[in-house]
Amino acid sequence: MTTPVRSYAAHSPTGRLGLFQFDRRSPRPDDVVIEVLYCGVCHSDLHTVRNDWGNAQYPIVPGHEIIGRVVAVGAEVSRFQPGERVGVGCMVASCRHCGSCGKGWEQYCESGATYTYNSKDPIDGSATQGGYSEQIVVAQDFVLKVPEALDPAATAPLLCAGITTWSPLRHWQVGPGSRVAIVGLGGLGHMGLKLAKAMGAEVTLFSRSPGKEADARRLGADRIVISTDEGQMASVTGRFDLVIDTVPCDHDVNPYLPTLASNGTLVMVGYLGPLTVPLNTVPMVRGRKALAGSLIGGIAETQAMLDFCGQHGITSDIELIRIQDINEAYERLIKADVKYRFVIDMASLQDGAPAMGSGVAA
Amino acid sequence: MTTPVRSYAAHSPTGRLGLFQFDRRSPRPDDVVIEVLYCGVCHSDLHTVRNDWGNAQYPIVPGHEIIGRVVAVGAEVSRFQPGERVGVGCMVASCRHCGSCGKGWEQYCESGATYTYNSKDPIDGSATQGGYSEQIVVAQDFVLKVPEALDPAATAPLLCAGITTWSPLRHWQVGPGSRVAIVGLGGLGHMGLKLAKAMGAEVTLFSRSPGKEADARRLGADRIVISTDEGQMASVTGRFDLVIDTVPCDHDVNPYLPTLASNGTLVMVGYLGPLTVPLNTVPMVRGRKALAGSLIGGIAETQAMLDFCGQHGITSDIELIRIQDINEAYERLIKADVKYRFVIDMASLQDGAPAMGSGVAA
Ligand SMILES: [Zn+2]
Ligand SMILES: [Zn+2]
Ligand SMILES: [Zn+2]
Ligand SMILES: [Zn+2]
Repeated sequence: MTTPVRSYAAHSPTGRLGLFQFDRRSPRPDDVVIEVLYCGVCHSDLHTVRNDWGNAQYPIVPGHEIIGRVVAVGAEVSRFQPGERVGVGCMVASCRHCGSCGKGWEQYCESGATYTYNSKDPIDGSATQGGYSEQIVVAQDFVLKVPEALDPAATAPLLCAGITTWSPLRHWQVGPGSRVAIVGLGGLGHMGLKLAKAMGAEVTLFSRSPGKEADARRLGADRIVISTDEGQMASVTGRFDLVIDTVPCDHDVNPYLPTLASNGTLVMVGYLGPLTVPLNTVPMVRGRKALAGSLIGGIAETQAMLDFCGQHGITSDIELIRIQDINEAYERLIKADVKYRFVIDMASLQDGAPAMGSGVAA
Repeated sequence: MTTPVRSYAAHSPTGRLGLFQFDRRSPRPDDVVIEVLYCGVCHSDLHTVRNDWGNAQYPIVPGHEIIGRVVAVGAEVSRFQPGERVGVGCMVASCRHCGSCGKGWEQYCESGATYTYNSKDPIDGSATQGGYSEQIVVAQDFVLKVPEALDPAATAPLLCAGITTWSPLRHWQVGPGSRVAIVGLGGLGHMGLKLAKAMGAEVTLFSRSPGKEADARRLGADRIVISTDEGQMASVTGRFDLVIDTVPCDHDVNPYLPTLASNGTLVMVGYLGPLTVPLNTVPMVRGRKALAGSLIGGIAETQAMLDFCGQHGITSDIELIRIQDINEAYERLIKADVKYRFVIDMASLQDGAPAMGSGVAA
């Protein structure tokens, strides 16, 4: 009763991704069967397949920025019907009854959320596999409605890069009159600029590279501050209500704390690990400033973000690639050589491939 | 037109405090002249006179936990009259028109608040001198009304230790159903236990010493967790909405972050400086947890705290000392040998002293 699907998978931390066939479950009563049309390429995909976080369970089919079309629904599915455009992000299940789930914070589920790939299905214990595949089967509560007016390929990155910056912007109540700064101009950072601007905030980009000014302004920045220039940094002392730090590696956050207004927050969304430069509590104590973290976002807020993007015509700046080019895309991702997100056109998975069901496996 | 007052002052970082006479200004139209009855002894007094923060301007008359009685008021003073019991805390002025002052956060004044001692009066530039003195003159907006029902000596520490723990408890909206933990049982910590309990929270003390359990329970703790015991620490994973860290020196805060619930905050109120153990962002990102700082509190919230303490009969546990014993008290403070705050009975300043105005100076 399962369905064989073609995909691209990693089989070891050092191996390249290659064609792989595996079985998707037949839909449970609350499942939505989705044909994957586009899938964004996230830093997490790369970290996971290379086992940077030490939890890789191979084979891994990455991909959690998924845009597709409903092809079938289970008997109890009320919210979706075949033909609808839908999205799937970083999670496909959570316990749904803990304190966090009750607040709509499935990403902080006390039992641990089930991720879209490299996780275990809570019902049958099978490995979850992501969006670098023809099809995905997901419980309706974790499927998002995607505005038809938006370009579907450019919408894919909203499911991770978009919600990761949206959630802190909303949680810390950014709106007209707010002063927001974004650290780093990559996949997350460029979405942060667009969303903060659309929310009505005054938006600043912190960057080490003066060359990014024109692009940053086009994306929504009112101003660029070169973070290595002490004079420019001093000129924004006490200025920001919220600074969203998207830098994906260890770095010194101390220079950003004094740029917060009293009661302001610096929120880390890009880096998971120890900050090796000692954190100075002085600016925190002398202004009730906070250093926080934030992880993607809950399902309801992801839907709110997609609806907002539909109303405001916001999508990601993308470079569309074929699935056959994914390994080269990873190499470029490491060098931050992408403006600003790779998205895989999943139609490419059919290029030169035998017909379905013919047994082509990796 | 100034008034000579007796006090105890420090004249150098290494010197002991000794008797010192200086002039208090004659009251301006909005000033309140206060006879100091009791003054608490705060860690900041010690840090300042020993120049630990590098900003000492000698001579320094410390003391910012002041309880006194109004002896005279300026022509424009409407809120106070002679005979009233009043308090003065850590600040005696701020700009009153910046964004922070407008929100009642005078402690975060963008121009810098004027502290009760070792600061400069914003009008005449003279050195501010604190509560280890017979008399203090303060603008009415920085004078607090003190409930007459409370023991005045035991009320003094509310002006710093009390408000320093009250402000984060209120800012992070602690109330019935909240789970709060306090790190460290000293002057700040013991007030944190009392106030959090009176607000209706479930209260835990983190301590390195099992011997503190009985005292902690008496002060309001529902539970003690020995912070060096990994099993005990694991038993409170994800438990607290707010952890208030009162430890006054550099220490590893990483063990406390996992004890926060999602969206919880660890707030530092005791230590100003670099945290030398690298801060791990993982629990922060994977639960939207924050590390924050907080400094004393604003004037309106200090008044609210005093009113609350009057209603709930809350004061500090104190050891009353004579001013002549202040140097020994400092030595004991360094060893944390006090339960839980020294308060100076300022009547002792008259012991064996010549009559006022006879020219006795240090
Ligand atoms: Zn992602
Ligand atoms: Zn849950
Ligand atoms: Zn103090
Ligand atoms: Zn101010």
